[in-house]
Amino acid sequence: MELFFLGTGSGVPSKERNVSSLALRMLEERGTTWIFDCGEGTQQQILHTNLRPRRIEVIFITHLHGDHIYGLPGLLSSRSFQGGETPVTVYGPRGLKEYIDITLQISGTHLRYPLYVEEVEEGILFEDDQFVVEAVSLQHGLESYGYILTEKDKIGELKPSKLKELGLEPGPIYQLIKSQSQTRLDNGKIIYRKDVLGPPKKGRKISILGDTRYIPDLKYKVKDSDVLVHEATFASDENQMAYDYFHSTVQQAATLAKEANVRELILNHISSRYQGSSLKQLETEARTIFSHTQVAYDFFQYPITRNT
Amino acid sequence: MELFFLGTGSGVPSKERNVSSLALRMLEERGTTWIFDCGEGTQQQILHTNLRPRRIEVIFITHLHGDHIYGLPGLLSSRSFQGGETPVTVYGPRGLKEYIDITLQISGTHLRYPLYVEEVEEGILFEDDQFVVEAVSLQHGLESYGYILTEKDKIGELKPSKLKELGLEPGPIYQLIKSQSQTRLDNGKIIYRKDVLGPPKKGRKISILGDTRYIPDLKYKVKDSDVLVHEATFASDENQMAYDYFHSTVQQAATLAKEANVRELILNHISSRYQGSSLKQLETEARTIFSHTQVAYDFFQYPITRNT
Repeated sequence: MELFFLGTGSGVPSKERNVSSLALRMLEERGTTWIFDCGEGTQQQILHTNLRPRRIEVIFITHLHGDHIYGLPGLLSSRSFQGGETPVTVYGPRGLKEYIDITLQISGTHLRYPLYVEEVEEGILFEDDQFVVEAVSLQHGLESYGYILTEKDKIGELKPSKLKELGLEPGPIYQLIKSQSQTRLDNGKIIYRKDVLGPPKKGRKISILGDTRYIPDLKYKVKDSDVLVHEATFASDENQMAYDYFHSTVQQAATLAKEANVRELILNHISSRYQGSSLKQLETEARTIFSHTQVAYDFFQYPITRNT
Repeated sequence: MELFFLGTGSGVPSKERNVSSLALRMLEERGTTWIFDCGEGTQQQILHTNLRPRRIEVIFITHLHGDHIYGLPGLLSSRSFQGGETPVTVYGPRGLKEYIDITLQISGTHLRYPLYVEEVEEGILFEDDQFVVEAVSLQHGLESYGYILTEKDKIGELKPSKLKELGLEPGPIYQLIKSQSQTRLDNGKIIYRKDVLGPPKKGRKISILGDTRYIPDLKYKVKDSDVLVHEATFASDENQMAYDYFHSTVQQAATLAKEANVRELILNHISSRYQGSSLKQLETEARTIFSHTQVAYDFFQYPITRNT
């Protein structure tokens, strides 16, 4: 499971940073990719990666500002043109359905795969055997959400040494033993799975927030995240600007990360005003408060390892 | 006056070619730029040129397929963000106004300049002291237009040798003489402008067509164009494919150019199936019929000189 940053700028694209989009690649976990926001040019950014639009399963839109959605119709249509056949679900604020319907309809676009558009409210969006995904309300000029993904714990790996002690040689029996809590062997002996498993694999928690003012109480929601992706549109000394424009400062993002005890903070949605030394300065400001901070850049990849 | 190709691919973007957009830069003529089609990523392409969104005066949309319009909301909003204040007019087929209104409204975008959207029909779109612009109907899966720009002839340059013969030294009097058909000098003598001018400068004709099947009768409309930009989505041997998908072959584009006696043909809207030698083959096929042919590529610039 890894994050793949496709666009890390704010507002308008620059040569250095495209507008917002972020992929969560889960090849091992479910063979699919989830996308968070889809600014103009996201499909072009994808061309320069090994991400495959066919594999996109879910797209989460944090809010409807143009720099977060204008690439959506193009990505959806190109995915069809390129032979994508599996369903896609798009989650996002009210208005998203009309936006997608009208743009596809006026441009005469017919998708060859099922598209589901779900307008969200705060709360659990869905839960399957791997993940629970929750939307949390943010404070921006218009309806904006953060998405919190909680991976479920998985049982540990079989311990071959334990199995051999019990006289079991590797073979299909190993899978059978792993698939059920107890297995009766041909000789009548019962093997309890718990006796032959290593420690359970703790699920990971990933919090990806859209544009927002600083909300101290978010710490309860993003608590103990393995990774928190937070906007940082302004430097630490621009509190008033950040407040006025419904954005956060680097200092605020780092404070939230610290108070929520997250494992890693990735600063995103970086204004093109910050380049070179002033960009480095943003990182320094954040690390003073929370050392496990990185500033995202286009095509930055962050593997989300398990916390062991 | 020069054409600046921003996206020359067809349908979906590739690493080599972005989706459709073309700029006509007229710095000398009117200090502005006109844009033809605006596929997704047009504003990003512009970042790699010396074109300035602020200078955009008119945008012509040939048809509403996504690869020709999905970059429009982003370009319009970024132009505002970057301080564009002068009005922009967008011409295009029915549905364009709803598309622009809905995308800007849902994304909470407020432009800081006047935007006029004009849905077109076949005929003269506008005329000013420099240009007449006409829309011609094409044949595509949905309403599609070509735009024919006819520059008006301009009076010639003053000939200093003639003026000196008449005893006039360079000074403000020169401009006065050029600005009116006859000028009475302080000594009572009358100077007729026609006697001191070089030959008139013939206006140029530029024909830019959207996606279309081959229409033989278009030759009357694009006749004697200084440059004809024509789609060439298919190779010469794919007549049936071209017909079925409402596109043209290279052979058809070259035939039209020849029959219309244009000065230069630029093939555009090139499928990503044609690369390397097969792309070269397209050019060869066209030149067999019409030698003054070029195949467009992204960032190709074509100065439209006067035919002297």
